[in-house]
Amino acid sequence: MFSYQLHHVDAGSIARRGTFHTPHGPVETPAFMPVGTQGTVKGLTRSLLRATGASMILANTYHLTLRPGEQIVSQLGGLHRFMGWDGPILTDSGGFQLYSLAECCRIREEGAAFQSHIDGRRFTLTPESSVQIQEALGSDVAMVLDHVIGLPNGRDQVADACARTIRWARRCQQAHQSPHQAQFAIVQGGLEPDLRVACAEQLVALDFPGYAVGGLSVGETPQEMQQVLEVVMPYLPADRPRYLMGVGRPQDLLEAILRGVDLFDCVLPTRNGRNAMAFTDSGPVRLRNRRYRDDPRPLDTKCPCPACEHSLGYLRHLFHAGEMLGPILLSAHNITYYQRLMTDARKAIAEDRYTEFCRDKLQGWAVKADMV
Amino acid sequence: MFSYQLHHVDAGSIARRGTFHTPHGPVETPAFMPVGTQGTVKGLTRSLLRATGASMILANTYHLTLRPGEQIVSQLGGLHRFMGWDGPILTDSGGFQLYSLAECCRIREEGAAFQSHIDGRRFTLTPESSVQIQEALGSDVAMVLDHVIGLPNGRDQVADACARTIRWARRCQQAHQSPHQAQFAIVQGGLEPDLRVACAEQLVALDFPGYAVGGLSVGETPQEMQQVLEVVMPYLPADRPRYLMGVGRPQDLLEAILRGVDLFDCVLPTRNGRNAMAFTDSGPVRLRNRRYRDDPRPLDTKCPCPACEHSLGYLRHLFHAGEMLGPILLSAHNITYYQRLMTDARKAIAEDRYTEFCRDKLQGWAVKADMV
Repeated sequence: MFSYQLHHVDAGSIARRGTFHTPHGPVETPAFMPVGTQGTVKGLTRSLLRATGASMILANTYHLTLRPGEQIVSQLGGLHRFMGWDGPILTDSGGFQLYSLAECCRIREEGAAFQSHIDGRRFTLTPESSVQIQEALGSDVAMVLDHVIGLPNGRDQVADACARTIRWARRCQQAHQSPHQAQFAIVQGGLEPDLRVACAEQLVALDFPGYAVGGLSVGETPQEMQQVLEVVMPYLPADRPRYLMGVGRPQDLLEAILRGVDLFDCVLPTRNGRNAMAFTDSGPVRLRNRRYRDDPRPLDTKCPCPACEHSLGYLRHLFHAGEMLGPILLSAHNITYYQRLMTDARKAIAEDRYTEFCRDKLQGWAVKADMV
Repeated sequence: MFSYQLHHVDAGSIARRGTFHTPHGPVETPAFMPVGTQGTVKGLTRSLLRATGASMILANTYHLTLRPGEQIVSQLGGLHRFMGWDGPILTDSGGFQLYSLAECCRIREEGAAFQSHIDGRRFTLTPESSVQIQEALGSDVAMVLDHVIGLPNGRDQVADACARTIRWARRCQQAHQSPHQAQFAIVQGGLEPDLRVACAEQLVALDFPGYAVGGLSVGETPQEMQQVLEVVMPYLPADRPRYLMGVGRPQDLLEAILRGVDLFDCVLPTRNGRNAMAFTDSGPVRLRNRRYRDDPRPLDTKCPCPACEHSLGYLRHLFHAGEMLGPILLSAHNITYYQRLMTDARKAIAEDRYTEFCRDKLQGWAVKADMV
């Protein structure tokens, strides 16, 4: 039911072109998964989301178990039917939200005890319950529960969280039952090369159908993130998909693809879209800027998204008037931008010109200060 | 360029089936115009709006002159291009917003002086400037500036505002220049039958291409509104469209069609949609209600809108989770509901069964307490 097919490795790098097969269809990789945290990619109807070119999307175990609860989702036919998305869905395990969102969170060996960030209700999440929740949700890919910590952090803390992540991965694997769901392991280990390698080796020995690199985008520099990828990738099996969690900016994606990553997710395109920032080949466009007030041009003449049917002046007006349509249109644009970037990256890999492609894109973006 | 073609009058009432021709296409009447106050029907992309079945939409002179300003709209190609709507557009004159929204508004014979409800900036709006603004916007139909007052109100106040409305209509007609825009007059006169009749007669003598009934939905009962329509309609020419401004609930539309009205606009379907209320044939559905939490049924099995592709349980989740998609989907549903109601009303008139149609719909809605 699940397999990763490697089509080609770029001649000038280890960038990979592949297909990840799931029960809800194939995912052409490298791929970017839009984030549907609470069972909806914010602001996008199903048809608008489909039109962005997205194939696999992500939803969050932490959010959905708090509200509406996995039993409700299950009674309503599972996550695919609930959201109305018939393509592949990956669910995060909740590990990252325990770190970033939950209140009064206490991690013990058994699992995590925390309070809901919504209403303070007390919950526990264990490796086993995370597996059960994700099976009830019915996603195609479930992530193991990991122990995420921020960076920088002491080596002892990183080693402790890393060792716990490995023990929890084993427990998740034992608890896993559904044949319709693939379970991916998560490599932790902070910025410590030896811990990252040891973690990867031990998880690979457990033989998961896919591997993620986690615990990044939590305070480190882009260069530190790239170094971690360079350390870890050689230890991950070539016949399994590789997923860099929660990353990131367009340049982060291209740098990671260059280092062998296949899958990504990030809230950046939708979050920035809601805040009037559009991604383009020549850098970020901040739509609230006065310079656009009577600008009749579209954001991008080559973009097929519905935002690009309008003028910059109209888009600016929507944000200044506080109209919902502004966030809707820019979310659609930004996700479309990410999907087009992945399509172009896949083509560049297939044609053995990924490093040039990567360099050209980075140069275009560098015209303006930065992308975020 | 503009003409109203009367196809048929219902055998059992004065309900009319017609076509109003405009430079941006025909409007089959009776018709409901969704409200795009600030140059966007809140929450709907162009394709989502088109899919509701809407043909003519409304935008507001008051809002657009305040932000972004009619010069910006004009520089960006006019209202049709600005909004990306190639169907007919009607602009309200600002008369109602002077009454409902503007701060420190002082009406004198020359015009109105007021402060913006957004930032307190001082503006004046005269019959002539309202005409000029609407010509700059480039709508298909412009409304004359009228003097709107609330109800109940003293006869002297009503008479004064009514007389001013007639004088202003004359000034608007004199200021009107664009051959691409039709100007509709507005009958005022509160609940005073003789004032309403006198106002209608004087405006009809000025020979406008269309007539509206204004100053309703401002505090009176539905019965009082219906009585005003019964008084006014016989005085309006049969070969011109008749527009009841700012009304209203589905039952108000059907009662007004029964009394000879052709055109409507109202924020109710979008405003209520944003507040989790859906219109259906068996009355209102309030999506926040706990009873829907695990309900797998759609709102309406016959409705083609994107909300009805989902379960009630999912729609409820979206509102409880504060997700934009809830307001988007219910706005689309409610406008689709209004458009389907108008389509069915047109068919019923053509088949001489409008009174039965009307009775059946009213009975269905009466199952629950009320529609708002």
